[in-house]
Amino acid sequence: MKFCHGPREACGVFGVFGHKDAAKLTYFGLYALQHRGQESTGIVSSAGKSIHEHKGMGLVPDIFNNQALNELSGDIAVGHVRYSTTGSSVAKNAQPFVASHEGKTLAIAHNGNLTNAKELRNKLEKKGSIFQTTMDSEIIVHLLTHHSKMGLEEALVKTLGKLQGAYSCALMTKDKLIAFRDPNGFRPLCLGLLDEGYIVASETCALDLIEAQHIRDIDPGEILIIGEDELKSIKPFPERRKTFCIFEYIYFARPDSTIFGQNVYAVRKRLGKKMAQEYSIDADFAMPFPDSGNYAAIGFCQESGIPLEMGVIRNHYVGRTFIEPVQSMRDFEVKVKLNPVKEILNQKRVVIVEDSIVRATTSKMRIKTLREAGAWEIHMVISCPPLKHPCYYGIDFSTKGELIASDHSVEEIKNFIGLDSLCYLSLPGMLEATGLDQDSFCLACFNGKYPIQPKEGFSKFHLEF
Amino acid sequence: MKFCHGPREACGVFGVFGHKDAAKLTYFGLYALQHRGQESTGIVSSAGKSIHEHKGMGLVPDIFNNQALNELSGDIAVGHVRYSTTGSSVAKNAQPFVASHEGKTLAIAHNGNLTNAKELRNKLEKKGSIFQTTMDSEIIVHLLTHHSKMGLEEALVKTLGKLQGAYSCALMTKDKLIAFRDPNGFRPLCLGLLDEGYIVASETCALDLIEAQHIRDIDPGEILIIGEDELKSIKPFPERRKTFCIFEYIYFARPDSTIFGQNVYAVRKRLGKKMAQEYSIDADFAMPFPDSGNYAAIGFCQESGIPLEMGVIRNHYVGRTFIEPVQSMRDFEVKVKLNPVKEILNQKRVVIVEDSIVRATTSKMRIKTLREAGAWEIHMVISCPPLKHPCYYGIDFSTKGELIASDHSVEEIKNFIGLDSLCYLSLPGMLEATGLDQDSFCLACFNGKYPIQPKEGFSKFHLEF
Amino acid sequence: MKFCHGPREACGVFGVFGHKDAAKLTYFGLYALQHRGQESTGIVSSAGKSIHEHKGMGLVPDIFNNQALNELSGDIAVGHVRYSTTGSSVAKNAQPFVASHEGKTLAIAHNGNLTNAKELRNKLEKKGSIFQTTMDSEIIVHLLTHHSKMGLEEALVKTLGKLQGAYSCALMTKDKLIAFRDPNGFRPLCLGLLDEGYIVASETCALDLIEAQHIRDIDPGEILIIGEDELKSIKPFPERRKTFCIFEYIYFARPDSTIFGQNVYAVRKRLGKKMAQEYSIDADFAMPFPDSGNYAAIGFCQESGIPLEMGVIRNHYVGRTFIEPVQSMRDFEVKVKLNPVKEILNQKRVVIVEDSIVRATTSKMRIKTLREAGAWEIHMVISCPPLKHPCYYGIDFSTKGELIASDHSVEEIKNFIGLDSLCYLSLPGMLEATGLDQDSFCLACFNGKYPIQPKEGFSKFHLEF
Amino acid sequence: MKFCHGPREACGVFGVFGHKDAAKLTYFGLYALQHRGQESTGIVSSAGKSIHEHKGMGLVPDIFNNQALNELSGDIAVGHVRYSTTGSSVAKNAQPFVASHEGKTLAIAHNGNLTNAKELRNKLEKKGSIFQTTMDSEIIVHLLTHHSKMGLEEALVKTLGKLQGAYSCALMTKDKLIAFRDPNGFRPLCLGLLDEGYIVASETCALDLIEAQHIRDIDPGEILIIGEDELKSIKPFPERRKTFCIFEYIYFARPDSTIFGQNVYAVRKRLGKKMAQEYSIDADFAMPFPDSGNYAAIGFCQESGIPLEMGVIRNHYVGRTFIEPVQSMRDFEVKVKLNPVKEILNQKRVVIVEDSIVRATTSKMRIKTLREAGAWEIHMVISCPPLKHPCYYGIDFSTKGELIASDHSVEEIKNFIGLDSLCYLSLPGMLEATGLDQDSFCLACFNGKYPIQPKEGFSKFHLEF
Repeated sequence: MKFCHGPREACGVFGVFGHKDAAKLTYFGLYALQHRGQESTGIVSSAGKSIHEHKGMGLVPDIFNNQALNELSGDIAVGHVRYSTTGSSVAKNAQPFVASHEGKTLAIAHNGNLTNAKELRNKLEKKGSIFQTTMDSEIIVHLLTHHSKMGLEEALVKTLGKLQGAYSCALMTKDKLIAFRDPNGFRPLCLGLLDEGYIVASETCALDLIEAQHIRDIDPGEILIIGEDELKSIKPFPERRKTFCIFEYIYFARPDSTIFGQNVYAVRKRLGKKMAQEYSIDADFAMPFPDSGNYAAIGFCQESGIPLEMGVIRNHYVGRTFIEPVQSMRDFEVKVKLNPVKEILNQKRVVIVEDSIVRATTSKMRIKTLREAGAWEIHMVISCPPLKHPCYYGIDFSTKGELIASDHSVEEIKNFIGLDSLCYLSLPGMLEATGLDQDSFCLACFNGKYPIQPKEGFSKFHLEF
Repeated sequence: MKFCHGPREACGVFGVFGHKDAAKLTYFGLYALQHRGQESTGIVSSAGKSIHEHKGMGLVPDIFNNQALNELSGDIAVGHVRYSTTGSSVAKNAQPFVASHEGKTLAIAHNGNLTNAKELRNKLEKKGSIFQTTMDSEIIVHLLTHHSKMGLEEALVKTLGKLQGAYSCALMTKDKLIAFRDPNGFRPLCLGLLDEGYIVASETCALDLIEAQHIRDIDPGEILIIGEDELKSIKPFPERRKTFCIFEYIYFARPDSTIFGQNVYAVRKRLGKKMAQEYSIDADFAMPFPDSGNYAAIGFCQESGIPLEMGVIRNHYVGRTFIEPVQSMRDFEVKVKLNPVKEILNQKRVVIVEDSIVRATTSKMRIKTLREAGAWEIHMVISCPPLKHPCYYGIDFSTKGELIASDHSVEEIKNFIGLDSLCYLSLPGMLEATGLDQDSFCLACFNGKYPIQPKEGFSKFHLEF
Repeated sequence: MKFCHGPREACGVFGVFGHKDAAKLTYFGLYALQHRGQESTGIVSSAGKSIHEHKGMGLVPDIFNNQALNELSGDIAVGHVRYSTTGSSVAKNAQPFVASHEGKTLAIAHNGNLTNAKELRNKLEKKGSIFQTTMDSEIIVHLLTHHSKMGLEEALVKTLGKLQGAYSCALMTKDKLIAFRDPNGFRPLCLGLLDEGYIVASETCALDLIEAQHIRDIDPGEILIIGEDELKSIKPFPERRKTFCIFEYIYFARPDSTIFGQNVYAVRKRLGKKMAQEYSIDADFAMPFPDSGNYAAIGFCQESGIPLEMGVIRNHYVGRTFIEPVQSMRDFEVKVKLNPVKEILNQKRVVIVEDSIVRATTSKMRIKTLREAGAWEIHMVISCPPLKHPCYYGIDFSTKGELIASDHSVEEIKNFIGLDSLCYLSLPGMLEATGLDQDSFCLACFNGKYPIQPKEGFSKFHLEF
Repeated sequence: MKFCHGPREACGVFGVFGHKDAAKLTYFGLYALQHRGQESTGIVSSAGKSIHEHKGMGLVPDIFNNQALNELSGDIAVGHVRYSTTGSSVAKNAQPFVASHEGKTLAIAHNGNLTNAKELRNKLEKKGSIFQTTMDSEIIVHLLTHHSKMGLEEALVKTLGKLQGAYSCALMTKDKLIAFRDPNGFRPLCLGLLDEGYIVASETCALDLIEAQHIRDIDPGEILIIGEDELKSIKPFPERRKTFCIFEYIYFARPDSTIFGQNVYAVRKRLGKKMAQEYSIDADFAMPFPDSGNYAAIGFCQESGIPLEMGVIRNHYVGRTFIEPVQSMRDFEVKVKLNPVKEILNQKRVVIVEDSIVRATTSKMRIKTLREAGAWEIHMVISCPPLKHPCYYGIDFSTKGELIASDHSVEEIKNFIGLDSLCYLSLPGMLEATGLDQDSFCLACFNGKYPIQPKEGFSKFHLEF
């Protein structure tokens, strides 16, 4: 049984240069980034002459043990956590992707989605390339190889010049670590320092765990080459409007991370406050579904004066049972994770503060259990506008069919879930709460305005053989 | 690495009579009771002619799979989760304890501690009994056997008449389920109904998960015999003052459970309110260490008007890494579980609302990370008085050395942890918050007044071979 | 899929006294005795103050790893390999059996079967004993305990005086190793010396592997007490006719072992020679089913002058597949283990030299594959007389229904298997081949004359709860 | 601890076309071919639209279970067992190799070694190809892809025209199975029929297990394309002298297989007879080291009249312990596998019949244990001439340093091992025993005459990144 009801992120990346514990630090970095991908993980390290890799399907602590980490010798490493769609050929899609060409080995960890992947792959195949996986990262390595005669820096510029879409990457050669991010800057990527070594990570929470110092973010469009004697930043592409993924703030990133220049917790709290400003609800208390809604709920309650309660209790040992419930156990999937507290809910008027609604099926089940626990009125406030359009840049709600708001009105959604009222935060309200310039974000999932149009043949994950 | 800093409960018990899915229901019941013991678990079922058992060291979902549950056939079952001390012979100490005598098999799951275990064991050994484990439950079965000629009911009365201390038990024969609880009622035990079957469980949260109805508690001193044609309750012992374990309210029980007649969440919230009434602190916000302190913190904030924040973020994938941190990762053990949010803590005056302090070493480490995150003032309020005396009835702080308050003043503890102030809830305040008669509780860990004196040779868990 | 066609032995025992590597030596000893039992294994060691145990279901190298062996500290150890019947409660039946009484812990490893187990158990239960397993060894420990006041030596004499049937045992206390064998001497048990330490083992092949010197056998009826300052042998029981299990020579023991004073390989070769003397067969070649029949076949060929061939090839990687064959794969169970060599068998007249026939079903399948490979005539010679009666002393053909010869004539068996002729070695021929006094053996499985009559209620393994 | 003392084969291949149980048959085929490679294995199947693969490091029954085989749907499959050198990147080298190009997926299983692999790879990399493994099979797929526009048949001819060295391959597309073998025919490859389906296998023992009919061998230089409506054989290359690997007869192939037109058992027996003709030794008995020398020993004894004995006993449960022996256990590595039978060896003059000598270190240890068991004279006869030259076509004695005969005389080897005499079969004697034309074999390992010279940069397995 899996308990994955929210939208799913594709990946987290991590890299280390110049630290004797490179693989171990990468392990802990991935451990802190586990929320960005739980289906496969991998680490590749370089000891100069030899490249070592270890990958597998599962959670970071299940895939690596002391022996595996010891074998990942060397002071450079890149790692990856991935959420991937199911299918028969998923094990081979675990990143980092590793390949060799004329005695040089490359390993790459990629977060995001290329929107012209199919087109690039077709061109490469016409030139004779063969593919072993369906990952964008394999395409990037092929392109780098085709330009390898120019030297690494030129090859990178040539290669990235051909990529369209979202990519925040850590690339390792036998003696270098290269971090680069697409000019739009869809996905986060930050730079840290630990002892004498450099760290690259999707989120700052990974730096915090290993006690590395957060120096700055990798800029959109930047290529940062970290070598023994150099730390070289190049920005070869014309500057473009930034389009950060606002959903990283709303749902994906860990609240203790700072991304795009703002602490995620603080943004979420402001989103909650904005909701309280936009909607006035008469209720006995407000509550989140732990833990994703906690921070917006705190902001909502502080602003509205409505008391905060924890109307459902999270079972901390949940998430790993594969036993089917017995027939009489209705709503098991919800209850095994979140048990309603009858004494708190009974005969009460409740506001649920929630981050977002994707399919609404989980919300419907949860609301049912609250009703059964005796709640009299249930209102729901959502910390973003209705999700209406698929994402082409790395979030797994890529078809309209998965988004209830794509073809249902707010009234219809309210009725489907079984609420007394349903309030979405306004788009301007959401943008204001971020604390950034309103033009800094990709809002395509809300308004359908895509910063980069996907090329024909785009189907995100499924470039099946 | 284990992350177990609070006091540790010994056990959770669960039993089913008369339901075709007895073992599966027991599985889910133990799953909901996992917080009461994480080191070993077991289920024994009866299909009338055959008795089946499956036990192991580890978490409930790790020990049982579909095959194991299918082999546990029959419509009667008892199960157990256990925290046990480390040592070479722990696997055999997994409960339920099973033994056979003259063709009759008994299985027993026990929560609590007998205070005259050593004395009883010595007497039994003098009569020729041999022991394979160090569990109290083996003693109970030996006593039952010695009286077996009288019939089960009489044997139970005779046996329980010899036991001293705390016991909330589920006992299974091939065709009966018997629940019994010591006359003091130290540990909780409740009765539920599902379809036509009866359920016995340590806490009501286990009834909730399997959608069973909570009928009532097993009374202190009650023996409830559930058979095919009978539901017989006997109370053979003179009534005594009840001495419920107040620590079940403060820390152990799940907040969504109702025990001793009160919802745990509601009690904890009242404990938080009482603290706000007893102490006035000037601070920017209050916060719990999630999740144990959450409910008292909610009550504290509601009463004091101090805003609630989540100053540390719980890593939900934590708890299973066995990799040692690298040298530079100080405070790893704390941070891997709870990461401070710098932006929330920086330059703030903070109140930590905590349930209790045992050794204070974990608190010390946590406070250090908050200081490093920039907190200016850190105050701590504790939802009970100082823990000064060991527990002889089933909680694992049995030696004075483990309890910092046993030989340190509040001022000393405050300094040890590194706080600006430390406030314990008063004993009368705590009792008032429970909502029960003040005489209903064992307060020995606070005031040293033991309702039942332990017999010579008592050493709780360690009746080592 | 299991490939266990011959009769199955119950157990192998091993013990070490006074060697710093006691547990590791026991591991290797059990490794060499694996042929005597493959379903469960265990080692218990004594470090004086502490007793350590590790047991499990499976082969020796699968149950123990370096960590487990390191935790089995101390310079005394006993170990056991066991074949056991299937059922729900087998894990707990893994030996050595360990129990504690008045601060003293005993561990016992037992090979054989008590014929008055049920009677002894009933008496013990009437005195109040409870049982957790169905093993004879638990009974022995109970009896020892009841006599513990007399001191160990007296208690042993008293206890063994009550036992009837077959027992070759290694018993460990915290500071002693005791080996004892029933007065009939059904099962082998030998004494070895390594460095300054003493070794006890079921067969000498275990001494060979650890390079220990074979000193002598434990005598039937002997109790050998090995302690820090003593090596004391007592023979408290009146001498009795020895009745060694002749089946140890025919099938069970490893050919490189010396038991009952004779090398097993040499005995088997003489059995083969005897067959050639008793029967004259006109054939192109003779062959064994590897490897059990190899040694008799060598003797048979040397005596008869018929050439030896290996008509079937043993697959060395066999024995662990759990995949069901596809429909077209007839005789898979036989072929996956032993593949016929068509070029050798085609159009040939073949003599199969086999150790014994139990059910005859496996023989039938094997002969069918030889016919399909083109053999023209197939004769079979068996190195013992027809097996007609169950064994009560430790071999798993305890019911008549399992023995085809119990109710079928040789002619009928020949036809059932599909042979051209079938020749059993005569009883006198078999006895002569052993090289021992003809009165030295239990021949009950051949002639029904039981040296010790089993008591009522005897059912070998199945003293089910 | 591994027990692999003989020369090691690289691979076994297996393929099925047109059978509903394709993957399961491949499983059993690989199971029968396990002796050709024990370190990794894999199966790839085609269900027309989808390709499924499952690979892993370990033995066939350890890597595949029912679920894995069920997921390998479709009626075409190819499989592989592989011995590979140790190193950090071996998991990815498990075959079959799978890749995709312009919507077409290929899977290839390869036995043998290309002698111009490095050269081909360099050329491909110059054209932009990248490599993820160090396997020859990846090179073959790249070449096929580069010619893909011509259609499969033409591409195969073009590709194979560029390959030099040894290759016996099974190649799968979504709807075809192609078997091909190098013009020299170094390694065996046979064709079978089961129900309506075709089978390709390295040895006929794999056909036997699944009850398939052996039709014929794939000819050297033949490309056999098996599709829905065709069974097309092409032989596009000029015919060449065949150079079968004679070592397949001497050591590698299973004795129940028929390869190169002769049954292996029969060849080995004739090798034994030849030895008896070439050398006359006065001895009490002859013996093999089981099981590789068994068949030559049978021939030797039949011809010489010297009695056959099994002087060492093979432990059938050996091969999986990872526990280091204790200090006193000398010669453990040998004894744990083969225990000498003292009673057979003591004071005897013994002839060891052995297939070959590679390093001679194992032989030395084994002879030492025979001496300690009391053997008076030990002579050894070897069923081939001295191994003096590395193999470039798929056998793992690729450097001279591994071959004691490359720089030591027979006298020196005799002394090193500790023998009384050492007799190698003559080259003409060996050839005569095969029963084939004397020109049919590659004899390079004996006489240094390589049928195909390896290209510069050849290092067999180690095209490391």
